[in-house]
Amino acid sequence: MRAVDIIRKKRDAAELSRQEIEFLIDGATQDRIPDYQLAAWLMAVVWRGMTRAELAALTEAMLHSGVVLDFSDLPAPKVDKHSTGGVGDKTSLVIAPVVAAAGLYVPMISGRGLGHTGGTLDKLESIPGFNVNLSLNDFRRVLGACHCGLIGQTPEIAPADKRLYALRDVTSTVESPYLICASIMSKKMAEGIDALILDVKTGDGAFMKKQADAEYLAELMVETGTRMGKKVVALITDMEQPLGRKIGNALEVEECIEVMEGHGPEDLRELCLDLSAWMFLLGNRTKSLAEGKKLASEMIASGRARDTFREIVRLQGGDPNAVDDPARLPRAQHQTPVRAKHAGYVTGIHCEHVGVAGMLLGGGREKKEDAVDPAVGLVLKKKVGDAVKAGEPLCMVHYNSDARLADSVALLEHSFQIGPAAPPASPLVRKIIGAP
Amino acid sequence: MRAVDIIRKKRDAAELSRQEIEFLIDGATQDRIPDYQLAAWLMAVVWRGMTRAELAALTEAMLHSGVVLDFSDLPAPKVDKHSTGGVGDKTSLVIAPVVAAAGLYVPMISGRGLGHTGGTLDKLESIPGFNVNLSLNDFRRVLGACHCGLIGQTPEIAPADKRLYALRDVTSTVESPYLICASIMSKKMAEGIDALILDVKTGDGAFMKKQADAEYLAELMVETGTRMGKKVVALITDMEQPLGRKIGNALEVEECIEVMEGHGPEDLRELCLDLSAWMFLLGNRTKSLAEGKKLASEMIASGRARDTFREIVRLQGGDPNAVDDPARLPRAQHQTPVRAKHAGYVTGIHCEHVGVAGMLLGGGREKKEDAVDPAVGLVLKKKVGDAVKAGEPLCMVHYNSDARLADSVALLEHSFQIGPAAPPASPLVRKIIGAP
Repeated sequence: MRAVDIIRKKRDAAELSRQEIEFLIDGATQDRIPDYQLAAWLMAVVWRGMTRAELAALTEAMLHSGVVLDFSDLPAPKVDKHSTGGVGDKTSLVIAPVVAAAGLYVPMISGRGLGHTGGTLDKLESIPGFNVNLSLNDFRRVLGACHCGLIGQTPEIAPADKRLYALRDVTSTVESPYLICASIMSKKMAEGIDALILDVKTGDGAFMKKQADAEYLAELMVETGTRMGKKVVALITDMEQPLGRKIGNALEVEECIEVMEGHGPEDLRELCLDLSAWMFLLGNRTKSLAEGKKLASEMIASGRARDTFREIVRLQGGDPNAVDDPARLPRAQHQTPVRAKHAGYVTGIHCEHVGVAGMLLGGGREKKEDAVDPAVGLVLKKKVGDAVKAGEPLCMVHYNSDARLADSVALLEHSFQIGPAAPPASPLVRKIIGAP
Repeated sequence: MRAVDIIRKKRDAAELSRQEIEFLIDGATQDRIPDYQLAAWLMAVVWRGMTRAELAALTEAMLHSGVVLDFSDLPAPKVDKHSTGGVGDKTSLVIAPVVAAAGLYVPMISGRGLGHTGGTLDKLESIPGFNVNLSLNDFRRVLGACHCGLIGQTPEIAPADKRLYALRDVTSTVESPYLICASIMSKKMAEGIDALILDVKTGDGAFMKKQADAEYLAELMVETGTRMGKKVVALITDMEQPLGRKIGNALEVEECIEVMEGHGPEDLRELCLDLSAWMFLLGNRTKSLAEGKKLASEMIASGRARDTFREIVRLQGGDPNAVDDPARLPRAQHQTPVRAKHAGYVTGIHCEHVGVAGMLLGGGREKKEDAVDPAVGLVLKKKVGDAVKAGEPLCMVHYNSDARLADSVALLEHSFQIGPAAPPASPLVRKIIGAP
């Protein structure tokens, strides 16, 4: 078997066999196939796409390029959630403790932020001392102790994805739903979970701007996970405006603690309850979504979710007191408002620009190597549908350096559309794919 | 400017600017852009194609990646011929001396054979002592002395093409008419010529099996050359059966000498006269094709073409006596016939298989690194339209080793179609593109 022939076959739109795909992925993992052949094949996949059989073979080959965790000794179902990413998208920090507090296990391996979107690991690291780089043994220990562990990618998990993702990043082959699906699902299936809820974002602040693209990716992921014997459901959710009101690493942790205290913005709270309810249903913890939502609300009202979160923080080396006293989280030195130029109703928020504005303050990364400032960010005072007076603050900018403040504020000033009437409310969950 | 953005632009079917193409080609030449980015870009070009402006920019950037020869001090027009390659396609060895003998200059830089097709350099090297690896200074000296030089690629000419071609070969990105055009034309334009005749082969033994593909490539090359200020015409010629009767390096030199002695097979002789006539017309040596054909015939009848060929051989280190006594060329030790199974007329010859049969004997290369045996090959006793009796030889196999003889003979036995009636004769030159 030769890589050049496999590239030609894909170039000519033929279906690759499982053996051919395994040859490529094994060759990538063991460094037997050079980058230039992988790059040509990746571009041919962007061009020609993949059949469902090819996608299943690719995902499985990537999964088995590394360690597949086995938590079958733990005495309850293992469930996880994955989001395709957005602005202010912080549900993991609420859902994981809620679901763990109710007795399921949540072995969650997350990523970092890039561009206009944030990442769970960066948010967790804003908690003083929190260590996301646990060994797989320590991950297992924390998971066993408090039903949840929150870590980053380890070198043992799906090494083929690491090599391919690094190549995709520099060869403009990231945006293929097949390659995205295989990348996400190979890593999630390595977590040793029984069920997975996918939060596939769509809209201006999402990776998939068009709902049809989000639905297509969701269908691929649901089908691929199901073929691999897992329960998988995807929610298509709105990312036309930021989720919640706070954007920035420490600010988002703070807002998650507010939700776990029974407060916080309604959209964020509702989505956390929905996602938790799906995890309860898929993990056989409840018999219906309604029952699951009730259980999630109880975990919050009783303080058990917050107790679990405090325990996770403590077991992963973080300051547990920060959970009760968010003043212990990093705070930016300065605040400045962005004000409405005229009165009316907020009819839209340019969500991607709001994300970029947060990144420009130092809260996110332009390049993977960039460091992030955990303290900076934005607090939205107005969201879509809110009435606003001329001169009233639309959002507060939390910043530490004047360097790119002007760029950030200029973006924000053009990010809020204000019109004469409030637009009709649109649902946060637009569609459910793969419901059992 | 970043390569990743240029790749994305081409992936998304946008037109690249001249600056972007120069950035890529300069980066390839100076090793600033890694192979994997070039490979992804090449596959995106195979996918999306190129506009004529992009193609002109690419060809010029590749041309100017190296030395562009300047023969403006030589006192007559400089002309060349390029063929896209076929089986028994040996016209260069006749045309170059014919055209040089009539006073034009022919600075011809040729390639080697690969797969089922032969290459001019391999044929020349079957002449004992013939050196195709002249320095550019020696090339100039030979060209000045006898109006013709026949050499291989030098490191100074179009180094960008060398890097890209090596990558295309291993990433299945060879078969793009745009990349083929830029590769051929950048090297031909570096020869310092005023005019170029292209012999674009089509049919079973050609690279372009379909005439429409051959015509498209021909149009691209004619337009690209014309944009660069050269006179360029392309003939679309038939490669449904081998050209002439002899296939194999020394055998083809022998057949070319036969043509220069006024004999040889009619199809080969006619095509050589046609191509020479076009070179005379484009090089302002004659005012019409008819006049050019007459001049070419005179160069052969007078022996001046053979005299020039003998002089080229001598100046490039070869044995000049081989031109008058082909017995001095390498000869295979054994011959065996392939016989007709039944009587009838030859209705078709599987031209690619005949080429592969010659390669299997050792006369060609499967891989670029393979050595070739100059002596082996095939002599066709029957061509399309010929009557044949049962048991009569269809071709003679000239071989040195039994190793793959059986494979070669088996292919040849299935390469001749014999039917009850001769098919209608089809013209060798199917179309002329870019006629002035």
